[in-house]
Amino acid sequence: MTAGVISELEEDTPAVPRPDGGFDLQLSGRWGIGGGRLNGGYQLAAALRPLATVMAEAGRPDPIVASASFLRPAVPGAARLATTVHRVGRRVASGSAQLCQPGPDGDPREVLRLEASFGDLAASAPDRWDGESAPRLPDPEDCLDLFAGTSLPTETMVIGRVVFRVPALPGWRRREPSGDPTAEFWVSFADGSDATLGSLAFVVDCATPVVSDLGRYSSTAQLTVHLREHPAPGPLACRVRTRHLAHGLHEEDFDVWDSTGVLCAQSRQLAVLGDR
Amino acid sequence: MTAGVISELEEDTPAVPRPDGGFDLQLSGRWGIGGGRLNGGYQLAAALRPLATVMAEAGRPDPIVASASFLRPAVPGAARLATTVHRVGRRVASGSAQLCQPGPDGDPREVLRLEASFGDLAASAPDRWDGESAPRLPDPEDCLDLFAGTSLPTETMVIGRVVFRVPALPGWRRREPSGDPTAEFWVSFADGSDATLGSLAFVVDCATPVVSDLGRYSSTAQLTVHLREHPAPGPLACRVRTRHLAHGLHEEDFDVWDSTGVLCAQSRQLAVLGDR
Repeated sequence: MTAGVISELEEDTPAVPRPDGGFDLQLSGRWGIGGGRLNGGYQLAAALRPLATVMAEAGRPDPIVASASFLRPAVPGAARLATTVHRVGRRVASGSAQLCQPGPDGDPREVLRLEASFGDLAASAPDRWDGESAPRLPDPEDCLDLFAGTSLPTETMVIGRVVFRVPALPGWRRREPSGDPTAEFWVSFADGSDATLGSLAFVVDCATPVVSDLGRYSSTAQLTVHLREHPAPGPLACRVRTRHLAHGLHEEDFDVWDSTGVLCAQSRQLAVLGDR
Repeated sequence: MTAGVISELEEDTPAVPRPDGGFDLQLSGRWGIGGGRLNGGYQLAAALRPLATVMAEAGRPDPIVASASFLRPAVPGAARLATTVHRVGRRVASGSAQLCQPGPDGDPREVLRLEASFGDLAASAPDRWDGESAPRLPDPEDCLDLFAGTSLPTETMVIGRVVFRVPALPGWRRREPSGDPTAEFWVSFADGSDATLGSLAFVVDCATPVVSDLGRYSSTAQLTVHLREHPAPGPLACRVRTRHLAHGLHEEDFDVWDSTGVLCAQSRQLAVLGDR
């Protein structure tokens, strides 16, 4: 992608400051997951971006951890974001944001509650120690496009915004769930843009849940993502794993490495299983 | 412990309802980590308990996920908790709490921001699927007491409230960090009481960070815990792991199984490394 060209995710996460200190947002219908519902990671990225501009003014430009509670389904259209700064500390600053949309009666209803902390990654050397390496994947061009030939409406869905490259089609994609809720694959934006620290908050929720390989589906209730490093340009290597289902709930861990093998994001979500 | 006897953790997490809908808390000096500071998990458990009573009135008694941002060090003494209910949904209800203590000027300052969601575990069958098993540990009585013979003031510290039983002393305890930031051990309350779903929010932050085996120390900035099952009576088997240090930050994952081998809690925290 040519430098300076705005990415689809940037284009679809606008935020206009309001006189009351909040922001007017416009959620785009291009980031759907089917059934008229919007992807949770997209909502999170859309809420995090304006909060980051507030925190950048306090000298803490980089989101380092963001924790979102998904309260109600978000829909394409107007939304309003209120932000609060809790504390600006020596190394970390913390704040929150509430994303609201009009309910059936027109009154605003909260759809997302976000808590996030910010720092300045450039202010410290990486001084890295890693106890786990990036997935060993074939080069992206030697992988399969997970949704090639799909009949789903890609214009209104995340699978039209993101390209997933897999070493082999997962069981669920062949309608034969494998029984193994783990996955490793490449993610890149379909528009050719490179990921940013903030867009990783979307990436960690962009894929089909790995419980699909247990023949299940689910929706995110809560997601916490640690944003560890600005990603280098290029595709992102992802490792996803679910270890425990119980009482209709499961966790999903989603780690992201950049094209140079550096760990950039780690997330864990708690999701509610749909009925069998 | 005799049934009906109140545990130390219950005794030290009292909450008196206030006319304004909040709670008066009294943080106890028995849960310190040295330097006059209180353990983060204790603060979390102290804030979660009153919020759970509010949510129980809405028919959602069980905390299933709690996410805490630690904004300032908490100290023993009076604290005030404000709670807010965001939404009571069909299966999950969500709310938040702010824990405040007087600052140097006497004005209240926020020390902890908590977001949590609640459900009713008894309303659904466990219907469990597990992709990872509990640690294989020798029986607790065949393990070593991690802090036996310590010269630290156990009356004012978490290590006096909790017994850690380890198969072998970790490197850091022998002043020879092993270079491997992982650990498996038993945890039980020193007063003989059994853990509850809510007290697991303390347990996941009760141990010395495993980065000690890299010769480092750290303090928690943010912690999210999934509370998956009411623990059976008896000691808790814990597995702790840190995989990535960068930019003065690290994650720590802390999983807890009960004495019957059932996964009860999973947490991940982001912590700030102290200077070398």
